Amino acid sequence: MTSRKSFGSDNHAGAHEAVLRMMAQANEGHVHAYGDDPWTERVTSELCTLAGARAAYFVFNGTAANILGLSLILHPYEAVICAETAHLNVDECGAAERLLGSKLLTVPAPDGKLTPDLVATRLGGRHDEHRAQPRAVCITQVTELGTCYSLAELRALGEFCRAHDLRLYIDGARLANAVAHLDCPVTDIAAEADVLSFGGTKNGAVAAEAVLVMAGDLLEAAPFQRKQLLQLASKMRLLAAQFAGLLENQIWLQNAVHSNSMAQRLAEGLRDVPGVSVCHAVQSNAVFADLDPRITGPLQRDWGFYVWDGQRNTVRLMAAFDTTAEDVDSFLAAVREASGSRV
Amino acid sequence: MTSRKSFGSDNHAGAHEAVLRMMAQANEGHVHAYGDDPWTERVTSELCTLAGARAAYFVFNGTAANILGLSLILHPYEAVICAETAHLNVDECGAAERLLGSKLLTVPAPDGKLTPDLVATRLGGRHDEHRAQPRAVCITQVTELGTCYSLAELRALGEFCRAHDLRLYIDGARLANAVAHLDCPVTDIAAEADVLSFGGTKNGAVAAEAVLVMAGDLLEAAPFQRKQLLQLASKMRLLAAQFAGLLENQIWLQNAVHSNSMAQRLAEGLRDVPGVSVCHAVQSNAVFADLDPRITGPLQRDWGFYVWDGQRNTVRLMAAFDTTAEDVDSFLAAVREASGSRV
Amino acid sequence: MTSRKSFGSDNHAGAHEAVLRMMAQANEGHVHAYGDDPWTERVTSELCTLAGARAAYFVFNGTAANILGLSLILHPYEAVICAETAHLNVDECGAAERLLGSKLLTVPAPDGKLTPDLVATRLGGRHDEHRAQPRAVCITQVTELGTCYSLAELRALGEFCRAHDLRLYIDGARLANAVAHLDCPVTDIAAEADVLSFGGTKNGAVAAEAVLVMAGDLLEAAPFQRKQLLQLASKMRLLAAQFAGLLENQIWLQNAVHSNSMAQRLAEGLRDVPGVSVCHAVQSNAVFADLDPRITGPLQRDWGFYVWDGQRNTVRLMAAFDTTAEDVDSFLAAVREASGSRV
Amino acid sequence: MTSRKSFGSDNHAGAHEAVLRMMAQANEGHVHAYGDDPWTERVTSELCTLAGARAAYFVFNGTAANILGLSLILHPYEAVICAETAHLNVDECGAAERLLGSKLLTVPAPDGKLTPDLVATRLGGRHDEHRAQPRAVCITQVTELGTCYSLAELRALGEFCRAHDLRLYIDGARLANAVAHLDCPVTDIAAEADVLSFGGTKNGAVAAEAVLVMAGDLLEAAPFQRKQLLQLASKMRLLAAQFAGLLENQIWLQNAVHSNSMAQRLAEGLRDVPGVSVCHAVQSNAVFADLDPRITGPLQRDWGFYVWDGQRNTVRLMAAFDTTAEDVDSFLAAVREASGSRV
Repeated sequence: MTSRKSFGSDNHAGAHEAVLRMMAQANEGHVHAYGDDPWTERVTSELCTLAGARAAYFVFNGTAANILGLSLILHPYEAVICAETAHLNVDECGAAERLLGSKLLTVPAPDGKLTPDLVATRLGGRHDEHRAQPRAVCITQVTELGTCYSLAELRALGEFCRAHDLRLYIDGARLANAVAHLDCPVTDIAAEADVLSFGGTKNGAVAAEAVLVMAGDLLEAAPFQRKQLLQLASKMRLLAAQFAGLLENQIWLQNAVHSNSMAQRLAEGLRDVPGVSVCHAVQSNAVFADLDPRITGPLQRDWGFYVWDGQRNTVRLMAAFDTTAEDVDSFLAAVREASGSRV
Repeated sequence: MTSRKSFGSDNHAGAHEAVLRMMAQANEGHVHAYGDDPWTERVTSELCTLAGARAAYFVFNGTAANILGLSLILHPYEAVICAETAHLNVDECGAAERLLGSKLLTVPAPDGKLTPDLVATRLGGRHDEHRAQPRAVCITQVTELGTCYSLAELRALGEFCRAHDLRLYIDGARLANAVAHLDCPVTDIAAEADVLSFGGTKNGAVAAEAVLVMAGDLLEAAPFQRKQLLQLASKMRLLAAQFAGLLENQIWLQNAVHSNSMAQRLAEGLRDVPGVSVCHAVQSNAVFADLDPRITGPLQRDWGFYVWDGQRNTVRLMAAFDTTAEDVDSFLAAVREASGSRV
Repeated sequence: MTSRKSFGSDNHAGAHEAVLRMMAQANEGHVHAYGDDPWTERVTSELCTLAGARAAYFVFNGTAANILGLSLILHPYEAVICAETAHLNVDECGAAERLLGSKLLTVPAPDGKLTPDLVATRLGGRHDEHRAQPRAVCITQVTELGTCYSLAELRALGEFCRAHDLRLYIDGARLANAVAHLDCPVTDIAAEADVLSFGGTKNGAVAAEAVLVMAGDLLEAAPFQRKQLLQLASKMRLLAAQFAGLLENQIWLQNAVHSNSMAQRLAEGLRDVPGVSVCHAVQSNAVFADLDPRITGPLQRDWGFYVWDGQRNTVRLMAAFDTTAEDVDSFLAAVREASGSRV
Repeated sequence: MTSRKSFGSDNHAGAHEAVLRMMAQANEGHVHAYGDDPWTERVTSELCTLAGARAAYFVFNGTAANILGLSLILHPYEAVICAETAHLNVDECGAAERLLGSKLLTVPAPDGKLTPDLVATRLGGRHDEHRAQPRAVCITQVTELGTCYSLAELRALGEFCRAHDLRLYIDGARLANAVAHLDCPVTDIAAEADVLSFGGTKNGAVAAEAVLVMAGDLLEAAPFQRKQLLQLASKMRLLAAQFAGLLENQIWLQNAVHSNSMAQRLAEGLRDVPGVSVCHAVQSNAVFADLDPRITGPLQRDWGFYVWDGQRNTVRLMAAFDTTAEDVDSFLAAVREASGSRV
């Protein structure tokens, strides 16, 4: 625990004050367990309205949201098309393979985004029993590289999926940051998906994500899949309350707008530093930058962040909901100092 | 949400004040995610000391604790011997079958407890490739019927397992209540197990259980199994903090002692009511009673509790950590009134 | 390899002459692999006509047939109701649990047969997310205890399943023996099922079973499930040819009629021997008998058969398609000698 | 069924005469089922001697051999490094993902072969619980592109695996062709592997492969994994007999030497045809050639073969054990005719 803020991950922040406060409030008295309580009923309903969803299910983390969401779509002989960089592919310890039994058909995507053309490259072998059958397309919005699909890009993917008998799943661990960036209603994004997740944890919750079901034919299995996949909380009101905290005064959106703006501030500052170049468009709370290793080394003694690609000397810098302009400016000063620049 | 306390489940209570307080305290500042933080380190260490365990892993709920614990022991062609009434068998939506691939070899056990003799009935077919191979014995302490294994019974099972090439897993969702009932150190129970869970949620946590690994040869896979089984929390300090709250001043034990005593008070009261008979020894915070349906019906209009066995008219009454003597006495008065007795 | 015939299993016999002959015939020239060949097309079509099925898929053994058949019906959170004695439950090393992820809900059934009443005992917990959801009923025809469901019993089960949103799977590893016993068209049995297997191996094939799909909504996944479940033969014509051999002149039925009659001869002979009592109705090619251990011991030195239940001294005696009246009479003579009777 | 031989697959051939003859011979009389018979014992022993293996297990097809072989090595959180072109990855309908629960870490490999350097590219993330842990390296010998690892290449991979805590699995569906090409004892190849398969089906068997276990610590689970993975044949002697047929007079090797030489004849002939170029070294019974589509089209009307890569106009031509020099020459004449050349 350092006094300094970390740029290592939005997960390095704690929970937002409103989340803890709402948990304390929901904690009063006895209620039924497993979601049959007024908090769960109310917050679920609010989330469904917000996204235009038919149902919402709380789970404990983002990996679980992805697996539950995809479990509603897939038989084990069916495959998921996703970017090579997808969290589902690289950061979930093979959970999809084990828990769904499904193959991931990965596509290199330099900016982390799939396109209809990229998806089409993995559609071979349909109706061939030797091949896992492409059924789901999984995209991440915001992507793992901090980029956002535009609404036009999303619609193109949605249309492609509907036209090609594919179902679209959106990993929305940072959906709030995408909504903030695109400045659009959640429904504009959600409408293209069959199922999506709406992340809470990285945006100020303790440990809560929501799986939102858009497609009416995918509703039936969800409660059973959630339980069998180890995601049914007994004291469900305390998960619902986390989202109640985020929904209060649109804190979820405020947090995202803020962390996005901190990333912008950071990127702008970095662009002025010799030996630093910002990679990818900065469209969320993440900044990827190529940093001279002579800068990275000293900087990591005092500041938390990760080297994303050691070959290219790319580092990832994440702003959290509680990152302040002062935090950013201090970090930038340290970068400048490490770079030997005297701006 | 009713103003009355529920006797439906210890899950109907919220979290203990100390748990929420400690979460708020742990929430300060930025720390590394996924458990690489001082709170997780400290609380894990305290839990290991308390139980004499080699490692402790936090997970989100009791089903997950069981599946993670057993995953350390089992290959998919290996089976778990458990009581027919085991939570693993009846209340986990087939999670063991799906996530471990393992067969459950169930044994009828009228009081919810296995014995070496009962285990022995399911040891047939060893070395026969047509049969799933018995490898784990899973017992619940406290059992699903509110009974406790005595230390002598535990030792007998532990010895039997060691002598018969079996590993002992203890589902300790209510381990605290067993420790309170047996008035023994946790180590006395844990020492017989290869892996066990130590429940937090039913005893005042928000959503946190610990999987404790006793056997040195079972350590290696645990971090990977936890992640792949969807149980790795990013803001781990907030799970650790829940246990920190329970460990403070031995609140976990105080809570269990208290809920056990409320169950005793309840059982004693019920024994005096005509048309009511208490089943099983009351050795924890659960009371099972055969209740005339003419009593059950009216009573359920005002009070929360479940009919456990509709054929035998058995109901289950659970005391929570926050159940008060007044709650119990009010409920008893209602029972007496419903029974038409004028004691 | 002994010169004596074994009563240990119908699997102890080799393949029928017609099966090997037809394999040799199908072996000529080159054809497409994986079933896209005239032999597969023709034999599949004949099997469909015989059973009134919509599709037929060859697999390698009976366990595979059961798993493939049930895979068409089940999601992993759905359960199979079956007799405790079901091959699926006791003799398949937990394949259902691992490969389907599904729980088996077992019912004690003294004669190996389920009834609607017995099935009804396992229908609790529907719509309760904590419970694996009953979806399939699996019966074995002929049962593992050599008994047969009558057509009336089958119809009652079929109706019950249709009325209760359950799908009926019939493990027909010895379906031919049931047809022989009931003296009915295959369609009379198959019509009650959603999916069934039609066994070849125990009735004279080398290693071939057919999975017959009756329900139109279950067709789509079958080719993929078969491949993913390791059951797609490249030289498929040589599996088809095995069934071609069995279908020629209804050898499958002749074999079953014969082995059934050998079992009858055996049972009749045993009934006359002191210290021997035949258990269950003899309705197929199996005889279960309680045998004084003083008879069993010496007899097993010269004759192959298995003790089925060591506690009750029950042995299982199977007639194969090539068991002769002389084999039976020799064995009976040996039983009589071992029993000390001088008939 | 055409009178012409197919160059589509070595699976388009039937079984070798010796295989069917030996099956007929093994078919006599009754023996124990499931491998407890003299044929299985003898042939298993011969295979072990041939390869220097500790144990050999028969299964029904190549996909099953791969899954069983890898099941002995892997936990579900462990991954397999393999070439993108690996049969395991592209032709098994996701069996590895479903049945092992394991992720495949694929590597582009232009000639179908892995090298230590290529394997090293997928070793990132070891000890990181977010990543599936590399544990097995799966290579195919002969590769899916008809190339062979030299003994030096194999040794380099074996050493690399041993040095990096990896286990080597060899998919030997066409191992015989590799032995023929390398002109070495089987042991020279097998010694580098922890487990390997030895293919029968593509080389003249009906439906039989052997899984050979080289590493002593991997023996225990094999019988149970084989049964649970649906690969235990009841009339095992008839699988053993298939290998007995192949082992007789080294027919397995004769077949491979012959089909390899037919591929050489084919490649040599093709090299002379304008508009045709042979890709990859021809080191087995496969020839890959880039063919002008104006040749491919007319040729496919009369001859069986597959377009491997429609973009590059690459076709795959396989010689089988029963492909004759006349077959090759007729085909070459047809190619020349289609190409308009008048050689």
